[in-house]
Amino acid sequence: MPRLSARARGVDASGIRKVFDLAASIEDPINLSIGQPHFDTPQPILEAVDRALRSGKNAYSVTQGITPLREKLAERIAASHPGQDRGVLVTSGTSGGLMLALMSLVDPGDEVVFFDPYFVMYRHMTVMMGGVPVAIDNAPDFDIDFDKLAAAVGPKTRVIVVSSPANPTGAVLDADTLRRLAEFADDRDVTLLSDEIYSSFVYDAPFVSPSEFSDRVVVVDGFSKSHSMTGHRCGWAHGPPDVIEAMTKLQQFTFVCSPHPVQWGAVAALDVDVTPYVDDYRRKRDLMRAELADAFDIRGAGGAFYLFARVPEGWESGTAFVKAALERGLLIIPGNVFSARDDYIRISFAAEDDTLLRGVAILRELARSGPRS
Amino acid sequence: MPRLSARARGVDASGIRKVFDLAASIEDPINLSIGQPHFDTPQPILEAVDRALRSGKNAYSVTQGITPLREKLAERIAASHPGQDRGVLVTSGTSGGLMLALMSLVDPGDEVVFFDPYFVMYRHMTVMMGGVPVAIDNAPDFDIDFDKLAAAVGPKTRVIVVSSPANPTGAVLDADTLRRLAEFADDRDVTLLSDEIYSSFVYDAPFVSPSEFSDRVVVVDGFSKSHSMTGHRCGWAHGPPDVIEAMTKLQQFTFVCSPHPVQWGAVAALDVDVTPYVDDYRRKRDLMRAELADAFDIRGAGGAFYLFARVPEGWESGTAFVKAALERGLLIIPGNVFSARDDYIRISFAAEDDTLLRGVAILRELARSGPRS
Repeated sequence: MPRLSARARGVDASGIRKVFDLAASIEDPINLSIGQPHFDTPQPILEAVDRALRSGKNAYSVTQGITPLREKLAERIAASHPGQDRGVLVTSGTSGGLMLALMSLVDPGDEVVFFDPYFVMYRHMTVMMGGVPVAIDNAPDFDIDFDKLAAAVGPKTRVIVVSSPANPTGAVLDADTLRRLAEFADDRDVTLLSDEIYSSFVYDAPFVSPSEFSDRVVVVDGFSKSHSMTGHRCGWAHGPPDVIEAMTKLQQFTFVCSPHPVQWGAVAALDVDVTPYVDDYRRKRDLMRAELADAFDIRGAGGAFYLFARVPEGWESGTAFVKAALERGLLIIPGNVFSARDDYIRISFAAEDDTLLRGVAILRELARSGPRS
Repeated sequence: MPRLSARARGVDASGIRKVFDLAASIEDPINLSIGQPHFDTPQPILEAVDRALRSGKNAYSVTQGITPLREKLAERIAASHPGQDRGVLVTSGTSGGLMLALMSLVDPGDEVVFFDPYFVMYRHMTVMMGGVPVAIDNAPDFDIDFDKLAAAVGPKTRVIVVSSPANPTGAVLDADTLRRLAEFADDRDVTLLSDEIYSSFVYDAPFVSPSEFSDRVVVVDGFSKSHSMTGHRCGWAHGPPDVIEAMTKLQQFTFVCSPHPVQWGAVAALDVDVTPYVDDYRRKRDLMRAELADAFDIRGAGGAFYLFARVPEGWESGTAFVKAALERGLLIIPGNVFSARDDYIRISFAAEDDTLLRGVAILRELARSGPRS
């Protein structure tokens, strides 16, 4: 009998690791692979964390999160969800919220449906719960095909995961699609889990959450991307009170609490205007799309800080393209890390402009020259 | 079909919640229920966290933890485990390490054996993994009965959890017992998981880990209790490289990393001498045991900061005793939170001396008067 659980053996992390192993072999790469903002945490947040440290906020917080943070979050959620009764829980980052939501909703053998390309945790966490991942191919438009969705959702489906804006495509679903998705989930008695970690980074229209259309939608969100706090591990979840209560109970015996001093930083974060950062990323998105439009088929890209580009004609795969890019010192991620398909690359534009432009030059050169150069 | 998973429904947190609900009803209690040190985090640690915040250590760290912390931990582990090849992982507190270890070792239907009274997470996390908790009654000596253990371990047993010093008993197992336990686990091809969160708080003999006797033992430990960092979420695990590698892989898709700035605080923590704190708790242990010895049967109490006392003759249960104590303004925990038995109470001595003495007066009065007073 193997010592390791089937769960541990079932999670395959080799895709992304292969990329990092390759990356480790080149010195000072042009790094367009990063999944987090390139600016530091805003100063008022760091000062609030420091004040918390120095005023003895170093012990466990209550499981559900400190009252000032929960109340401030609850106020905002109430404002955007009039008439709904929603529970709120402070989590250890959005990943912590995702984990607790799936633990609370998925038993071994249950199916979790999500859209391919997808954020890798959806698949891995489902496997960890003993659940069965069901991915729906969403390329090339990264929009939802409701016929495909209806065919994929069956009696064992417990959760549909959606993310708008999405990683890796940056695709933003419109309000009609999100409303239809929420109603579809309700009709099928399936929980819609909305990962809204990129909610601040929407460039062409106001952000819309599917939870605005149904009180049964469970939302996870966080401060990691919007306030560049990925290392601080603080986020939140809101949803039907019974689900949030279950998540809180499971948090008590797993994550315990989001780091206590950081929660005080998060209170300050809610008053930090991130518009300048978002505006800067919109400009970077425009720049990158303009520079690459004639060489690559790029759709989505309405939010987050990624372009998910189809590899140009002639290239065998995203993996082959990424290898060639690496040989020229450019680090990007092959699409098959996020997908059953291997004909895309993910380009992050969370970087300084000169890094972006150096990357663009290599991307354009590879598109022009093809794999035989 | 219920919306919540069987896993979420299977975790019963009502015991401890009942106590807290009762506690909320009294104002300014004499609180001897606390499961964490009563001193604040030492200043050099807070300063190191602050320096990290201000020098941009706010993004994700690598999954396995920052190199300076891992190397410092690895050095210490190598020194106490000569000849062993051990992997090291920085975790989100000891709870994070426990969770990842059980996720890496336990599949649905697998049995996890631990000793009753036990730290509540052993049971709840096992249930969350779909595993079957098997508790061995260890009262009244809180020592290991190897006949009972041999009878409890069967073909489905994957893990034995041990903790010395233990919560709630403070029991410290001697080196011979720990060696025999490690050898027993190896013989049965079961992983021994050693929860060493109280390793700094040992009062009558040097600390011994069962991992010193077998390279297959998996250890979880942390800074929460020794350096009063319960709200910071930083700990570590060490063990066989394949298990630590599996835990690292699962951390990547769950906890992501221990909070990055806190990890720099942990580097500083390893140079903070906690002897004065431990000496103070030894003195408190001596004081409490002396004050209560004639009224209560107290065994264990060689480490941690708890006395697990049998309720005196005449009292129906630990629960009844705790209720009577609460009516007098004293907050303690009934033993059935940690046990199938309900004839004990847990008294924490992580409190100021005057609080301890006010608690002692009530405990002695209740022991003398009995339940009919």
